[in-house]
Amino acid sequence: MAQAVTELYPGSKLAIGPPIENGFYYDIALPEPIKEEDLERIEGRMRELAALAQPIVRRVAGDREEARRIILEECTLGQGKETALYKLLLLEAVPEGEEVSFYDQQAQGHRFIDLCRGPHVENTSEIEHFKLMSIAGAYWRGDSSNEQLTRIYGTAFESAEELAQHLEFLEEAKRRDHRVLGRELGLFMFSQTVGQGLALWLPKGATMRAVLEDFLKDEQLRRGYDPVVTPHIGSIKLYEKSGHILTYRQKMFPFMEDEEKETFILKPMNCPFHIEIYRSSLRSYRELPIRYAEFGTVYRYEQSGELAGMLRVRGFTQDDAHIFCAPEQLLAEFKSVVDIMMTVLKKLGLEEYRVRLGTRDPSDTKYVGHDENWRQAESAIVEACEELGLAYELSPGDAAFYGPKLDLIIRDALRREWQMGTVQVDYNLPERFELEYIGEDGKPHRPVMIHRAPFGSLERMIGLLTEQYAGAFPFWLAPVQVTVLPIADRHNDYAQQVKDDLVSTGVRCSVDDRRETLGKKIRENQGQKVPYMLVLGDRDIEAGTVSVRSREEGDLGAMAVEAFRARLG
Amino acid sequence: MAQAVTELYPGSKLAIGPPIENGFYYDIALPEPIKEEDLERIEGRMRELAALAQPIVRRVAGDREEARRIILEECTLGQGKETALYKLLLLEAVPEGEEVSFYDQQAQGHRFIDLCRGPHVENTSEIEHFKLMSIAGAYWRGDSSNEQLTRIYGTAFESAEELAQHLEFLEEAKRRDHRVLGRELGLFMFSQTVGQGLALWLPKGATMRAVLEDFLKDEQLRRGYDPVVTPHIGSIKLYEKSGHILTYRQKMFPFMEDEEKETFILKPMNCPFHIEIYRSSLRSYRELPIRYAEFGTVYRYEQSGELAGMLRVRGFTQDDAHIFCAPEQLLAEFKSVVDIMMTVLKKLGLEEYRVRLGTRDPSDTKYVGHDENWRQAESAIVEACEELGLAYELSPGDAAFYGPKLDLIIRDALRREWQMGTVQVDYNLPERFELEYIGEDGKPHRPVMIHRAPFGSLERMIGLLTEQYAGAFPFWLAPVQVTVLPIADRHNDYAQQVKDDLVSTGVRCSVDDRRETLGKKIRENQGQKVPYMLVLGDRDIEAGTVSVRSREEGDLGAMAVEAFRARLG
Repeated sequence: MAQAVTELYPGSKLAIGPPIENGFYYDIALPEPIKEEDLERIEGRMRELAALAQPIVRRVAGDREEARRIILEECTLGQGKETALYKLLLLEAVPEGEEVSFYDQQAQGHRFIDLCRGPHVENTSEIEHFKLMSIAGAYWRGDSSNEQLTRIYGTAFESAEELAQHLEFLEEAKRRDHRVLGRELGLFMFSQTVGQGLALWLPKGATMRAVLEDFLKDEQLRRGYDPVVTPHIGSIKLYEKSGHILTYRQKMFPFMEDEEKETFILKPMNCPFHIEIYRSSLRSYRELPIRYAEFGTVYRYEQSGELAGMLRVRGFTQDDAHIFCAPEQLLAEFKSVVDIMMTVLKKLGLEEYRVRLGTRDPSDTKYVGHDENWRQAESAIVEACEELGLAYELSPGDAAFYGPKLDLIIRDALRREWQMGTVQVDYNLPERFELEYIGEDGKPHRPVMIHRAPFGSLERMIGLLTEQYAGAFPFWLAPVQVTVLPIADRHNDYAQQVKDDLVSTGVRCSVDDRRETLGKKIRENQGQKVPYMLVLGDRDIEAGTVSVRSREEGDLGAMAVEAFRARLG
Repeated sequence: MAQAVTELYPGSKLAIGPPIENGFYYDIALPEPIKEEDLERIEGRMRELAALAQPIVRRVAGDREEARRIILEECTLGQGKETALYKLLLLEAVPEGEEVSFYDQQAQGHRFIDLCRGPHVENTSEIEHFKLMSIAGAYWRGDSSNEQLTRIYGTAFESAEELAQHLEFLEEAKRRDHRVLGRELGLFMFSQTVGQGLALWLPKGATMRAVLEDFLKDEQLRRGYDPVVTPHIGSIKLYEKSGHILTYRQKMFPFMEDEEKETFILKPMNCPFHIEIYRSSLRSYRELPIRYAEFGTVYRYEQSGELAGMLRVRGFTQDDAHIFCAPEQLLAEFKSVVDIMMTVLKKLGLEEYRVRLGTRDPSDTKYVGHDENWRQAESAIVEACEELGLAYELSPGDAAFYGPKLDLIIRDALRREWQMGTVQVDYNLPERFELEYIGEDGKPHRPVMIHRAPFGSLERMIGLLTEQYAGAFPFWLAPVQVTVLPIADRHNDYAQQVKDDLVSTGVRCSVDDRRETLGKKIRENQGQKVPYMLVLGDRDIEAGTVSVRSREEGDLGAMAVEAFRARLG
């Protein structure tokens, strides 16, 4: 590509062009701006150059002086010494004593030579299945005070089939992009006036949140969790005690400080609050395990460049819980937590996942807690996984300093991997907060804590589910489950009646009685990916039926409301 | 009282002793510390002095010099000139030209003369029905760098009956104190480490919150509200736009400021966020009214002296909603809002209330919005009240600068009044944010906003309900509705079975299988004010029954589980 560009745009200054996942890019200072449309022209020249079957030869400079000479005399290809600017800067950055290599390709009067660590293919004829994808702006060394360069992205594969597959994947990923779908389906929005990375949930998204919350609350109730609600801010004293002020400050929003007032901090995590509740009375072994659950909204100051739709935000609601238990209860609790996580993934249709068990690296000294506790915790996790028939990968050294953990890594419909839920054993906070319970022996003991969040966060989970289902959510999760479409105004009353009937049994149903053509209304509701549409006309009123169109199965014909409701289960 | 104290504690320096609601206090520098037990002794001497039937005579000093002389020579009663310290300071604070009066009472060798503005009763024999209530520390002029004085509180009434009633009221208020009950019943707590005025909801309180939220969500769904969820912080830009940065800064927490980051503010209200959602797309008259509802937690920096349990906190969750409607929809919307508020009060058993309608004072110029809009809004509110048969008091000049409002003032079981829910018409924010909708005429129009919160906040409402019901919440609201008490361990399985059965039909039920005596368990569950206890023994297992004890009706005998469930409705 660089050869094609330097031929088409003489005077181009090549900067840096590394391989990346599924392709490559090159940052170039072009003598004139280019557009996406120009990529085709570059591709054309690339094909011609590839057809020349230029052998690509690796050359090593004898010393720095020679490298400098090659850059200034050969690489510039007679286009002026100033085009060598960035290559000279790159040469300076090569550590003393390291080999400096060039790749030289030429045939039939075309030549291109570039400073490069390599490796390269041996002949340009091997480069057959490629596509230039996009252009973007980039600064030399990523520093915005430097010259802005043009970054050209491309992709290349060994076979036409692989390239086609990759392009299809990208098309599909674009079609499923939760940022686009989130807006189109009325799920959520962002506003510059409110602030970057702070989502506002629109009615349909807020409904999905509530559906997910209700589902998990039911599961948690069944498993003996107790709900709690805690503030979104806490005194700085709380975070001094928890130690987060030292370990987590980088991710915290600026403190709320004022000479005359106490200093408060927007909470980056819920644990210290749940601990305060635990500490509020003397606990007995009979009370354990105590399981405090909260849909707790936390705030973390991510760099603006790292924000990515709902997948990385600055405010998010964790489906958080903290379990305080006696060390000998760890196995049973861990099993119960893994069980709830499996239940959640199954319900969400995310059944492809792998499990990573982060254990201690015994040679490292950073870990807190007694050896005996670690052995107990690690073997509890292993045992829980084995009893539940869960395949897991051991990842020694991947534990946090305060305890071993288990991560769930999901593979989505596009075969991308996402780290979702996590379970974490914690020996540190019980120690810092001097947590205790009175054991059967009448003496104080220290409980163990488990942190867990099966969804991870509602934001990330709904973002992921939007991509997983391309917005066509399963019936139980769809924000609007049924839309009733009266054909004409005279069917509106019946439509309302059918709707009220369904709503009274808990179906999320709405009437679309806008004065638009039926065709347009059906198209729009299809676009909204509503699981069922009920089209109502004269015959339906007469027969007391509804004409059902299913998102998955198409036209199901007329049936009694009762029969339709029975279908929904 | 002051006479009794100076006689019992010679050398006492009297400071200031004003009347207060239902009584009085006197701040005195005593020569020795006293305890609550000593109040009885003072009361005794007061009774003796009252029995002397001392006439109380008002004397006016001719000039400042004479006033000074009376204080130093007569008021000191021979106990030393230093006892006149605070009276001399008070004299200095009397504005030049103002009358300086004394009250002089004497009989049978007892005398007491005090600098006082008055008025007083004419004879000590009139003081019959009184009681000293408590002692507290207080600083002269409220300044902690001054000497600490002893404040003695008392109460007095014209009849023994009134005094008895008042004492009973205080007893009852103490018995119902939500701060005490909140802790005893496990509803909520505060923690100095988390911060003053920031409640942590314990499992039972969090359950009550959820019950109240679910109830209102259902009502709102029925009335066409749409749920939204918005962040707890917003960029300073949002509050500059809303104007709150000027009008509300005093109540805001310190800003989150940092040189390198955008400035964020913890939200004191939800409206600007809902407005951003409204603004996120072009609205048509066909979409109106739009009703965004959110249980939004807001934070306001109340002075620490103003904090009062759950009745005044620094973080609270409003059952907030904002209605955006066309001016001609105002009447219907207002009616619907008043209707939902009445539904809420009825459900909560708060049926004694009055309605205050704050209208504009036409002579004042502070109001924004057109005259025609105000007339329309005020008449809409009046009409809504009248159509709903609601008695209201007009309170001209009580409107906010941005629109008229309706306040609900509740009278609780102790006949205290509380301002709870409010409905507020707003012409200001739609103007500031330039809100629009496209009317039937194809032209842009400005919508009206209604702010409303039937509960006010969950914190305040649960605090009030705790006092209203003295913790014995109605069945639907009780955090634990049924406790199952197995008599012996061999009844545990059946107890669990009964519990699971009830839980599966949505009853909040728990088993108390602690190894305590049945008597102790019954007493403790009574203390927790659980509506029903089911005591289970051998006979119940044999017959498949439960023995029911109702909180209100006592022992109801054995019945089938089915029959018990039917009772619950």
